Amino acid sequence: MEHMKATYMFGAGDVRVITVPDPELVEPTDAIVRVTRACICGSDLHPFHSLPASEEGTPMGHEFIGVVEEIGASVSTLTVGDLVIAPFAWSDGTCVFCQEGLQTSCLHGGFWAGNGIGGGQAEAVRVPQADGTLVVVPGAIDEALFPSLLSLSDVYGTGFHAALTAGVGQGDTVAVIGDGAVGLLAVLSAKQLGAERVILMGRHQARTDLGREFGATEVVAARGEEGIAAVRDLTGGLGVAKVLEAVGHMPAYEQAYGIVRPGGVISRVGVPQYEEAPVGFGSLFGGNVTLTGGPAPVRAYIERLLPAVLDGTVDPGRVFDVTVDLDGVPGGYTAMDERTALKVMVTP
Amino acid sequence: MEHMKATYMFGAGDVRVITVPDPELVEPTDAIVRVTRACICGSDLHPFHSLPASEEGTPMGHEFIGVVEEIGASVSTLTVGDLVIAPFAWSDGTCVFCQEGLQTSCLHGGFWAGNGIGGGQAEAVRVPQADGTLVVVPGAIDEALFPSLLSLSDVYGTGFHAALTAGVGQGDTVAVIGDGAVGLLAVLSAKQLGAERVILMGRHQARTDLGREFGATEVVAARGEEGIAAVRDLTGGLGVAKVLEAVGHMPAYEQAYGIVRPGGVISRVGVPQYEEAPVGFGSLFGGNVTLTGGPAPVRAYIERLLPAVLDGTVDPGRVFDVTVDLDGVPGGYTAMDERTALKVMVTP
Repeated sequence: MEHMKATYMFGAGDVRVITVPDPELVEPTDAIVRVTRACICGSDLHPFHSLPASEEGTPMGHEFIGVVEEIGASVSTLTVGDLVIAPFAWSDGTCVFCQEGLQTSCLHGGFWAGNGIGGGQAEAVRVPQADGTLVVVPGAIDEALFPSLLSLSDVYGTGFHAALTAGVGQGDTVAVIGDGAVGLLAVLSAKQLGAERVILMGRHQARTDLGREFGATEVVAARGEEGIAAVRDLTGGLGVAKVLEAVGHMPAYEQAYGIVRPGGVISRVGVPQYEEAPVGFGSLFGGNVTLTGGPAPVRAYIERLLPAVLDGTVDPGRVFDVTVDLDGVPGGYTAMDERTALKVMVTP
Repeated sequence: MEHMKATYMFGAGDVRVITVPDPELVEPTDAIVRVTRACICGSDLHPFHSLPASEEGTPMGHEFIGVVEEIGASVSTLTVGDLVIAPFAWSDGTCVFCQEGLQTSCLHGGFWAGNGIGGGQAEAVRVPQADGTLVVVPGAIDEALFPSLLSLSDVYGTGFHAALTAGVGQGDTVAVIGDGAVGLLAVLSAKQLGAERVILMGRHQARTDLGREFGATEVVAARGEEGIAAVRDLTGGLGVAKVLEAVGHMPAYEQAYGIVRPGGVISRVGVPQYEEAPVGFGSLFGGNVTLTGGPAPVRAYIERLLPAVLDGTVDPGRVFDVTVDLDGVPGGYTAMDERTALKVMVTP
C-alpha cells in the first residue's frame, strides 16, 4: 500500500499534514484523482476556530482540480489523464435534485472530508459518483489558468450562486457584504449578470481594491449601524434591492437586513454560524424582504462559467494571493485566519 | 358635531363599541367613507390576546367596503356615492414603492386604526390618500357580492400574495398551513395560479371542507412532527416546493420548514408572532430554501382579482360564516377566538 500526504485537523487551531494510505477505488462509480491544485476555504476557518479536539482528526479540503488516475468499472464519462474540476459537493447527476440543478441536495451525494471520503488538501482523493461529480476541462490547458479553474470548485460558483439566486439582472443595484474570496467573486458575478452599481462592504483595502477591479463601483468600509447608514445614504435612503451576504456571521446578517430595500432580496452563501436569526416584522417580514441562498450547487455552474475563464474574459483566480505546498498548509490556515492571506492555493 | 359608533379595544379581551365624533376631512387628499361592510380579522385576535390595558383604547378594524360620503379638495378619482374597497393599508399610489406594487411600504402610507386614523369596525372612516388607497367598484352591485368584495380588502389579497410570492404556477404542488380565512383563500389563489395539488394543513373540519371546495386536493389534520411526516409521505419523502404559511405562530413556521422541499419556497403572510426563528443550516440554508412574503400589498391585487369576483367565477366571500351588527362586534371577537366563527362580517 502506497502512502501520501494529507491535511487533517485535530482540533481548533491544530492543522497537521500527515501520512495516510493512498485512496483506493471502493465503489464502481468512484474515480481516483491526483490533486493538481487545492486550496484553503474561508469556511475552513470555522472548524479552525471551534473544532473539538479528537485523536483521529478530520480530513480537510473541499476544493481541488486534478488529473484522473484511475476509474471504477462503471465510470463512463472520464478517461485516465483527464484534467477535472471537483465541485465542493459530490453528486450523482441523475437524481431529481441534480436534474433541477440543486446538486448540493443530491439524494446520493455528500460533502468531502467526511463519511470515509478524504479531503482535497492532499495528494490524491477518492471521488464518489465520479460521472456526476467531475467536470472535464477540454483541451490543452495553460498552468496559468489553474487558479481560475480551481476557483470553479467553490468560491466562484458560490459567488455566482449568490448573485443568481438574488435575481441580479441588467441595471440592478447590488450590495455585497464581505471582502473574502466569495464576496469578491459575488461582485464579479453580479457584474457578469448585468448589475450597474455594486456596493462592496469590506474593510480590508487590498481586498476591496481587487473588488473594484472585479467591478465594485463603491466600497463601504464601515460596519454595523454606521455601515448600514452609509449604504442607505448611497441609495437615497431606500436601501438596496439585492443584497449578497458572503460571510455567515450574525453581524453580516444584521447588516443585510439593515440595508435591504422593501421588496428586496437577501441571498446568503456564507455558511451561517447561527441557527436562529431575526425574521419577524421588524427585520424581514414588514418590508416583504426575501431571504434566499444556501450551499451553492457549483456543479450546476461550472460548464456555464468555464468558457469565460478559458478565454480569459474573467480571471477569478486572482483571489489566490499566497501559494504553499502541502507542508505549508498549516501556515496557510494561520495566514488566512490572521487575514495576511486572502486565499491560499496549495500545490501538492 | 355628529357622533357615530366605533369599535375600540381597551386591553386584551376588552372590546367595546363606543360613541365617538364622526370622522371629518383633515387633509385635502382625504375622503370620508360610510362603511357598508366591515369584518374582524384573524390578526385582530393577536391584540385580543395581548394588548396592554389603556384608558383611551385603540380603534379596531382594517377591512371595509363603503360608500364615499365626502371628498377633500384634491381628490380627483372619486365621486360622492361611489362604492369603494379599502385595502388594509392606505397608500398614495405614486411613490416608488406604490409604483412597484408594494403599497404596504408606501413612503406616505400607513395602517388603519393608528396615528389618528380610525378603524373599519365603525360607521364611517376617514381615508387618507384616498385617490391612491380606494378602488371604485364599477356598475350596480348586487348585495350578494358584498362579502366577496369585502374579502378583497385583506384576506383574499393576502392569500393571493402568499401564492404569488411563492411563485405558484401551472402543475405545482403546494401546501397551505392554516385553515383560517387567509389559508383557505391561499388555497383558492394557488388553484387560480395553476397549482395541481394543494395540500391543506388544518384540523377544523368545517374549514378544511370549505378548503376542499376552494380546491384543496388533500387535507392533513395532524400537526407538529406527525403533520410533517404526513406531508412528506404525500410527496414521496421529498417535501413540497411551495409552502404558504398563513398563521404567524412559531409552530406553523416550524411546520413550514419541516415540509418544504430542497430548493423550495416558504411564503409567509400570517403576521409573525415572533421575531427570531431558525434560518441556519438545519432549517433553511442547507436545502437552499427561500423565505419570502410579508404584509400583502392587497391594493396591487384588487383590480386583478375583481373581475372574477364580479362575474361569479370565484366566491371568496364564503369565508364569512357569521354576520353581526356593530353592537355584536365584541361577541364576534369571542366567537372567532373560540373558533365557533371562521370570519365575522359586520353590517354597521
